Amino acid sequence: MNLFQSIYPTTDFPNNVVVAVAGADNKSTFQVITEALKRNAGMFRLYGDEQTLNELLLEFELEREKRIRIIPARNNQESARLAVMAVHDQKADVLMKGMIPTYTLMQEVLNKEYGLRTGELLSHVGVFSVPNREKLLFLSDAAVNPTPTISQKVSITQHAVKVAQHFQVDLPKVAVIAAIETVNPDMQATVDAAMLTQMNRRGQILDCLIDGPLALDNAVSAQAALTKEVDNEVAGRADILIMPNLEIANVLYKSLVHFAGAEVGGIITGAKAPIVVTSRSDSWETKLNALAIGMKTTETVPSRRNSYESV
Amino acid sequence: MNLFQSIYPTTDFPNNVVVAVAGADNKSTFQVITEALKRNAGMFRLYGDEQTLNELLLEFELEREKRIRIIPARNNQESARLAVMAVHDQKADVLMKGMIPTYTLMQEVLNKEYGLRTGELLSHVGVFSVPNREKLLFLSDAAVNPTPTISQKVSITQHAVKVAQHFQVDLPKVAVIAAIETVNPDMQATVDAAMLTQMNRRGQILDCLIDGPLALDNAVSAQAALTKEVDNEVAGRADILIMPNLEIANVLYKSLVHFAGAEVGGIITGAKAPIVVTSRSDSWETKLNALAIGMKTTETVPSRRNSYESV
Repeated sequence: MNLFQSIYPTTDFPNNVVVAVAGADNKSTFQVITEALKRNAGMFRLYGDEQTLNELLLEFELEREKRIRIIPARNNQESARLAVMAVHDQKADVLMKGMIPTYTLMQEVLNKEYGLRTGELLSHVGVFSVPNREKLLFLSDAAVNPTPTISQKVSITQHAVKVAQHFQVDLPKVAVIAAIETVNPDMQATVDAAMLTQMNRRGQILDCLIDGPLALDNAVSAQAALTKEVDNEVAGRADILIMPNLEIANVLYKSLVHFAGAEVGGIITGAKAPIVVTSRSDSWETKLNALAIGMKTTETVPSRRNSYESV
Repeated sequence: MNLFQSIYPTTDFPNNVVVAVAGADNKSTFQVITEALKRNAGMFRLYGDEQTLNELLLEFELEREKRIRIIPARNNQESARLAVMAVHDQKADVLMKGMIPTYTLMQEVLNKEYGLRTGELLSHVGVFSVPNREKLLFLSDAAVNPTPTISQKVSITQHAVKVAQHFQVDLPKVAVIAAIETVNPDMQATVDAAMLTQMNRRGQILDCLIDGPLALDNAVSAQAALTKEVDNEVAGRADILIMPNLEIANVLYKSLVHFAGAEVGGIITGAKAPIVVTSRSDSWETKLNALAIGMKTTETVPSRRNSYESV
């Protein structure tokens, strides 16, 4: 399954979503934007060095593109601040990081005055299309929370469920991963897994089916679950994998990309708008997927914006 | 690359290696042994319930097989003890776990009187053939040491190097994995990685090239290493991955098998003989691979044994 196609079956982006891009003044970001515009993406507010941005518009033959607006910024900090403020002021629906440090962007996102806090935890959700697997896989948290507490894992799970629902997975199956499938008080990952499972059964976490602890094989392989005699609706059929910590999630993320040949896109959820944060080493396809996912998970698609003027 | 073929290019097992199988009285183990015998494997000492073993010999049409000897055992504990003692007494070169708990077998392996201790740490090495990757991948430790100390990681590395050398990887490239590629005193995996790297440069760990910390992508993808500007002989070209802890190694192990479609075999090293420990949920191919790797990494292939009588 092609990830992009499962995001937008018609291959078109929604044309009424506005994306604010902090640090857009570089070729790599322009390549992604160009590809998005080819697919009828909405509108972009590009923040960065004015002269460089104008040169890039010419180079990418976008100088007449009405769906782009350029907003000059003197440095990374200002670029981040202005982009964040645009989302805060509802001039944009999605925040995207170009070539500025993630730290600089997140500092502005977390600003108490004009930032994008909602009181919710921020967490990262990766969306994967894995060869020979018939459905999408959602993974969290591979980028934001290093060692989440149980209450943070509740939020992480809820955010991942919400993202999965945007992909028409109505009652996602959530596997809470550990090294083993039994509860061991000395292994925190298994304790957290037991709690999340039971919270789900008690109605404390809704709109999904949770089971854990599950070793990775029991989570995704029906055969492995059968052999280990772990028999429930989640085991072997997981849509969402909640990982013990960032280090483990990160290794699985990279293994899926580099060994399994998976396509991936990821976003940060929990703020006032989806935040698209890609890594320098990501391919442009991965960046485009992330952007598409960010646009897809925008919860309030404002109908008032349908022309360049309103960008 | 087919893993089995890279273990034994001629498709034949060495015919002078004796394997002691604890808990052999089940179909799953017999299937593996039958396949090994088809490939000219050496000799098997099978421990377990006498009647069941004899019935299985008939069922698998092995009743005239001169390369099998049956040794009755009344229970799992005795089965494990007798198999371990056979290796201890040099009647066998490889120890293999059938359908008995790993714990029961390892208890006997660690017995001070007749066990297989050498004073070395025991560690697990997984050998993977990953689709679209041109060389084998060695992974440690996904099964024995939950949270290895730095001195244990030295042993884990040395054992993995030794196994790689059995596969004609003369100077293996060892990547020490962490979530990031910079040294951060607050992240122990990165500290350990820096130490292992420098120990290698100082000649404290020989016969390999070590670099770390490396995130998984920088370890195995030349392109990712280039983008992150990590430039050395190991980055992007790793043969061996040393993981921060068992939990992370385990997830990578299962991701390789279940998402990347890798073939795998693994053994426990550091004892007097290779120990083949497979999981109930492993396919028979995986078990056969593990057995083949165990036979291949036997360091003393005794020439004195070349007939059934000496088994």
